[in-house]
Amino acid sequence: MRISLVAGLLASVHMLACAQESDSAGEAAARRLLATGLTRLGAYRMLEELAARAPHRLSGSTGADSAVALARSWMAAREFSNVHLERVTVPHWVRGSVEQAFVRYRGKHRQPMAVCALGGSIATPPAGITGEIVEVHSFAELQRPGSAAAGKIVFYNRPMDPRLLNTFEAYEGAVDQRSRGAIEGAKAGAVAVLVRSMTLALDGVPHTGGMGYTEGVKKIPAAAISTRDADMLSALIARGARPRVTLILSSKTLPDTVSANVLGEITGDEAPQDIVVIGGHIDAWDKGTGAHDDGAGCVQAVEALDLIRTLGLRPRKTIRAVMFMNEENGLRGGRAYPADSLRRGERPVAMLESDAGGFAPRGFYVDADSGVRSRIARWVPLLAIAGAGRFVAGRSAVDISPMVAKGVPGFGLNPENQRYFDYHHSDKDTPDKVNPRELELGAVAEAILAWLISEEGF
Amino acid sequence: MRISLVAGLLASVHMLACAQESDSAGEAAARRLLATGLTRLGAYRMLEELAARAPHRLSGSTGADSAVALARSWMAAREFSNVHLERVTVPHWVRGSVEQAFVRYRGKHRQPMAVCALGGSIATPPAGITGEIVEVHSFAELQRPGSAAAGKIVFYNRPMDPRLLNTFEAYEGAVDQRSRGAIEGAKAGAVAVLVRSMTLALDGVPHTGGMGYTEGVKKIPAAAISTRDADMLSALIARGARPRVTLILSSKTLPDTVSANVLGEITGDEAPQDIVVIGGHIDAWDKGTGAHDDGAGCVQAVEALDLIRTLGLRPRKTIRAVMFMNEENGLRGGRAYPADSLRRGERPVAMLESDAGGFAPRGFYVDADSGVRSRIARWVPLLAIAGAGRFVAGRSAVDISPMVAKGVPGFGLNPENQRYFDYHHSDKDTPDKVNPRELELGAVAEAILAWLISEEGF
Repeated sequence: MRISLVAGLLASVHMLACAQESDSAGEAAARRLLATGLTRLGAYRMLEELAARAPHRLSGSTGADSAVALARSWMAAREFSNVHLERVTVPHWVRGSVEQAFVRYRGKHRQPMAVCALGGSIATPPAGITGEIVEVHSFAELQRPGSAAAGKIVFYNRPMDPRLLNTFEAYEGAVDQRSRGAIEGAKAGAVAVLVRSMTLALDGVPHTGGMGYTEGVKKIPAAAISTRDADMLSALIARGARPRVTLILSSKTLPDTVSANVLGEITGDEAPQDIVVIGGHIDAWDKGTGAHDDGAGCVQAVEALDLIRTLGLRPRKTIRAVMFMNEENGLRGGRAYPADSLRRGERPVAMLESDAGGFAPRGFYVDADSGVRSRIARWVPLLAIAGAGRFVAGRSAVDISPMVAKGVPGFGLNPENQRYFDYHHSDKDTPDKVNPRELELGAVAEAILAWLISEEGF
Repeated sequence: MRISLVAGLLASVHMLACAQESDSAGEAAARRLLATGLTRLGAYRMLEELAARAPHRLSGSTGADSAVALARSWMAAREFSNVHLERVTVPHWVRGSVEQAFVRYRGKHRQPMAVCALGGSIATPPAGITGEIVEVHSFAELQRPGSAAAGKIVFYNRPMDPRLLNTFEAYEGAVDQRSRGAIEGAKAGAVAVLVRSMTLALDGVPHTGGMGYTEGVKKIPAAAISTRDADMLSALIARGARPRVTLILSSKTLPDTVSANVLGEITGDEAPQDIVVIGGHIDAWDKGTGAHDDGAGCVQAVEALDLIRTLGLRPRKTIRAVMFMNEENGLRGGRAYPADSLRRGERPVAMLESDAGGFAPRGFYVDADSGVRSRIARWVPLLAIAGAGRFVAGRSAVDISPMVAKGVPGFGLNPENQRYFDYHHSDKDTPDKVNPRELELGAVAEAILAWLISEEGF
């Protein structure tokens, strides 16, 4: 998300200029939430439990079932109100037991490369697909006469741009290779695609993530390789070694199955039908344990509500935790939620979500009109109590986007992001990469913001 | 450092209000510095080299000599001008080869506890000192009648306050136990002191750090134990187990010896006698490899100058990197520098230092009068290019404090600080805890600020 520096600063000026109006009741609540959160560090304990009991929880998996049950049990144990599951039909892709790749060049024996199927990919034949590698950095290159992708394996090797301060911008500038690479490769006649992992780290770990096919274009297998192997392949090609790769994937898509969003709340004292949601997504890729993506967001939501409850704060509006199912490969949970909420006759007031990692929060991306943005400016010093006193206009988060599209103000927690893609969608995304205090600060920031929205409105 | 929220915010408002005046030449330089830094990540390569070649570099050690030589070689290899050493007489404390502790209670065999001598401590007799443990949380408790510390080992167990957002505040609220614990313990008749490690992490790793004695009070040995062992000892005491500890230290203080600050610069084109310093301290405790404290600050200073040089930027004033010697246990390098600078007839313009870890920078602590603070406000958007667009009035950094005390504006890089004390002064402070991009961003922020001071002045 590109945000103009000047616009951001002017907004900040305005917000800060309004800061002195902040009320002392809100400040007292914010300080208590901070002190309690940093003393007990409850979010991290849940994160460890999630990683231990439901490490792999892609939609449709038994791990996802375990995660749903665990999230529900957290909410029940904390005596949230109205704890229940909302049925969601979800896709069911499975990685399968075999994923391998080998490279051969100039008489060398075949050498293994770490590889992982992209989410949604079809399998190769059991013996794999073998082909010469054609390296490209854009889809445009595939259109060039003489790109000669036909019958070969296309290797997308455009790195995330390291020069960008915001790593999410770097990700968005490269991820088309992963999401649409198989389609564009197939159009050019390729038999499979390999994609450089979406990370700024240089290491041997492949990062998975969603990819798609489209009607009328042949489906071909798609996998990620590590950045080190990508550099290695590129160097081989540069010196004319004409490497050939064998790719073996056993992934497949099973019929859709049934899963659920998990909901629980603190019912509002004055306006129970006015709903402030704090969300995270409970599904995660089947690599690592989805600690930052998005175990962090889930446990922060539960912890935020529990901090409010523990302190005996009674919100005017209902504050609800929602663990959305299927953010990673379908958004079915996020899409189901607005209809379910409408059916219950609720008035959605605001949607918060944390889905950018469990790092130290800096503030929130605000997806709302300028009226809301100027009215929340008075809360800047209260959120600064948790280190999160920066509102920046921008896209909030994926699960809440269907509701935000209906005009409900969206708030995406905005943590420090330099390390996020080092771990994202890979075996490295485990709780040891999460700092308990940083994680808790995100929960505290969400609790403060939800509390202020509940008490003061926009 | 306690900074009033309101004062900080008002300063920010003012700074942001002035932000639009920033010139485009400065912005162009800032963007080039960022892009070049994030592409090459030069600071981290130096940090790895420092950790490999001079992991332990406490003043007076051969490791310190190696670090000085290495820093000089970095500057020479980058063709800095006027690369030289400034002689500094330094204290020479050595840990010795043996440091052990054992706890016994209620007939249990003696159980080992991880322990490390505090810097400056005397040794115990070779067989150690054995005594019953008296747990206290403040010096005042030692004064109480019946505190009965005489002949015993005082155990300081007041934790860093986890409720504080700023971990440096939590550190400052607890570190008197380490720095003055031996003095106050000895006054109460204790035979040794143990101090709960200065960290918010709960683990088995002891953290060292400086401590002192005072004339007329008996010197007794002082050591740190891990937070887990501190909790264990406290629990034993609480249930009446009356634990006895044997402490064996072989540390000693040798005669002062000779070491050096390391200097190198880009000489100013227009005002070479006007000096903008970017500093770090090259000494480090003999635990871990001093990666965050303060290898980070050293390599950032060298990288900042080298980024400016690489881009062909020719500063009006001289921009100088200074690796100060002996921050950790004497400040001799920081104290020597002002006299040396004066002798050369220089005009010190500003002192920058990074000594709060190699984490993602958020801005700078500014130790300068309100006139300077308001004039630098125009640079906020330029520093925000590196994520460091926040000036907060506060103490800058230790090595530069003697010069700042003379009225020279001081700037302390202010990185994200939640993890800092997890590693500080312990075996955990190694380069794998440093993210190459976060480290580089600090160097870029220093380069931008030094460049702006050189070009525009205050």
